[in-house]
Amino acid sequence: MNSLDDYTLQLAQHAAKASQRLSVTTTEQRNRALAETITALYTHRDDILDANAKEIQRARTRDYTQAFIDRLEITPDRFEKMIQCLESVIALPEVIGTVSNTRELENGIELSQMRVPLGVICMIYESRPNVTIEAAALCIKTANAVILRGGSNAIYSNLLLSKCIKIGLQREGIPQDSVQVVGVTDREAVQQLIAMDKYIDLVIPRGGKGLIEQIAKHATVPVLKHLDGICHVYIDQFADHEKAVAIADNAKNQRYGTCNTMETLLIHECAAETILKDVIRVMKNKNTELRGCEKTVAHYPTLKAATECDWATEYLAPILSIKIVADITEAIKHINHYGSKHTDAIVTQDKDNSVRFQREVDSASVMVNASTRLADGFEYGLGAEIGISTDKFHARGPVGLEGLTSNKYIVTGDCVLRT
Amino acid sequence: MNSLDDYTLQLAQHAAKASQRLSVTTTEQRNRALAETITALYTHRDDILDANAKEIQRARTRDYTQAFIDRLEITPDRFEKMIQCLESVIALPEVIGTVSNTRELENGIELSQMRVPLGVICMIYESRPNVTIEAAALCIKTANAVILRGGSNAIYSNLLLSKCIKIGLQREGIPQDSVQVVGVTDREAVQQLIAMDKYIDLVIPRGGKGLIEQIAKHATVPVLKHLDGICHVYIDQFADHEKAVAIADNAKNQRYGTCNTMETLLIHECAAETILKDVIRVMKNKNTELRGCEKTVAHYPTLKAATECDWATEYLAPILSIKIVADITEAIKHINHYGSKHTDAIVTQDKDNSVRFQREVDSASVMVNASTRLADGFEYGLGAEIGISTDKFHARGPVGLEGLTSNKYIVTGDCVLRT
Repeated sequence: MNSLDDYTLQLAQHAAKASQRLSVTTTEQRNRALAETITALYTHRDDILDANAKEIQRARTRDYTQAFIDRLEITPDRFEKMIQCLESVIALPEVIGTVSNTRELENGIELSQMRVPLGVICMIYESRPNVTIEAAALCIKTANAVILRGGSNAIYSNLLLSKCIKIGLQREGIPQDSVQVVGVTDREAVQQLIAMDKYIDLVIPRGGKGLIEQIAKHATVPVLKHLDGICHVYIDQFADHEKAVAIADNAKNQRYGTCNTMETLLIHECAAETILKDVIRVMKNKNTELRGCEKTVAHYPTLKAATECDWATEYLAPILSIKIVADITEAIKHINHYGSKHTDAIVTQDKDNSVRFQREVDSASVMVNASTRLADGFEYGLGAEIGISTDKFHARGPVGLEGLTSNKYIVTGDCVLRT
Repeated sequence: MNSLDDYTLQLAQHAAKASQRLSVTTTEQRNRALAETITALYTHRDDILDANAKEIQRARTRDYTQAFIDRLEITPDRFEKMIQCLESVIALPEVIGTVSNTRELENGIELSQMRVPLGVICMIYESRPNVTIEAAALCIKTANAVILRGGSNAIYSNLLLSKCIKIGLQREGIPQDSVQVVGVTDREAVQQLIAMDKYIDLVIPRGGKGLIEQIAKHATVPVLKHLDGICHVYIDQFADHEKAVAIADNAKNQRYGTCNTMETLLIHECAAETILKDVIRVMKNKNTELRGCEKTVAHYPTLKAATECDWATEYLAPILSIKIVADITEAIKHINHYGSKHTDAIVTQDKDNSVRFQREVDSASVMVNASTRLADGFEYGLGAEIGISTDKFHARGPVGLEGLTSNKYIVTGDCVLRT
């Protein structure tokens, strides 16, 4: 066994041990540890901003995009947002230990379900230091130990942030190993951690599709995937003209780099000369590049033609593909075929079409007369989110506290036997 | 691509296609298809029993255990049990399409959760033809397509049973590919199916630990594991003497080959000369072999000494290991270390110890004054079960209809945009 093996094994073993102690802490202890983390963050604010500034500087000397550097940066504003995140997680109601579905059964037992932590979570994410705080806060709140593996360009920021969290934990007598940042940048470390199913209960990867698919392929630990968002808005024949234009605009142009942004607009053929005309005008005003299906290009010959590849692409950019469909059936079929099961919306005033769309579209969030951009833990009132799952298993859509927990059965009898 | 590749790919693609149509069927259609399956089973009863008799005969010429042959056999009584299973699944309330947790949010959306099928389930199990009917019934009820891969010794029974199911599906216009039995016995077929995450949403393996671990290691599809049950009963210092003896007896001796059978008895040291004496007497009367820890053997020198290995063994046989512990803390520690997170029970009249045990034992079912043998879908009122999950993810413990579904978010607004 080489030293990296030793290191990752120790991380996992320490996390598993910490998780046992963490699971029997009280709500008050965990909330106070989060509050103490805030204090520690303010104490070490300058150190954190300095370390981050150095990392930004280093990233600038390499060939990183501005978007990459933006995500890496801890601006004073973003520092405050971290604090706010901690405050809002403290304010969330406790889920751990809550008992539900209590029923008395004929055989004499009382059966309930108790919400419990998953155990140890391994989070793999991009060079975004704010995720370190968000993930740690959600995990501490739900009494899960967490191993954090952020992008290597943010490692010093992350280590300092985790130092503050460890101070918070220590002040409440909670094991510091409840939150550990992977201190090496070897990619091999990730490969090792995702195979440690003896100690780790869940892997949450965020980032590029290639990375996530690699992890899903090699992990023996269960994986909660956050894959791409190829989100659709379908403008139905019974859509309100103004609402349709407003929703299409918001879903595409409110922000481009997010997974819940619309990538393809589907529109009923009877609106091709009416609503679509205004949608195209709005998109052009915002310099959003348009790529149309054959019918769309026939109506609007100045548009670029979409290829088969466009329907399956997450642009993450001011680009929109447009397809004219014959009816809601074709729209649903297109979404279930090309979509990524993330978030899709219909604009319609027709009740039957709303119900049908919501039943038949197989996506984590299915919306009526609302922008796909609303698919988000904060917008959904979950208080915070660790990501947006595109898996159908365990947790779909924005994942908040509940997605980081499971239910165990608790049974009480007075000497009940199996007959 | 060779012909096996083609075959398994087709199975998966056909299942995925069927699942889309199945997901929009009504409750009545699916229930009637199950009722028509009953009719078809009665029509083909003799063929099924004949085919099964031949398989039993063939198995007898090989070196299979009597227990193996028992499980393979469709006795007339077991045939009726299959019918009863179908009837009870028909009678279960619908879960698909049910909407819950509806809330109005400040941003103007109405958010709910709708219970939906997982999609395509691949079930891998032993040579037990009754599981073919049980798994198909639960999957049809929950609108999931299923690929069934039972043990090769039961393939002809399974193909005939699935023929009856297909007749039932066809009579209601539901695609016959909703239920497919893998028609080849190559082990390679399993390896291929568990990597088809494009088409298959969940793998449920049942059977030997080795097989399940292999599947978990190589699958890219999520796996719901049904691993071993190393179940404990802890007799507390505040246990009622008679209840303790009755529960220990039932948990060990009611049936030996089941995963919820007690394998290790833990007992508080102050009961070592009282309750334990009677437990040992009962076990000896039933010819259950006893293996004690050092302290136990000091009290009862005729007992065999347990080794470290015993604490981690699922005997599935009339063998019981016994350990005397100093207190509830040691008992919980032992269970969380050596147990398999399946089912564990405490016998006590003390409220605080009950609560502490149920909170701190990290198992799918945690019981007070009840036999571990009660951890079962029927006993829990789930109507039926597809297995007992030892995973912490998605579904823990007995898995009924809910474990075969997921929730999607449905969102309704009146032109709600992200600000």
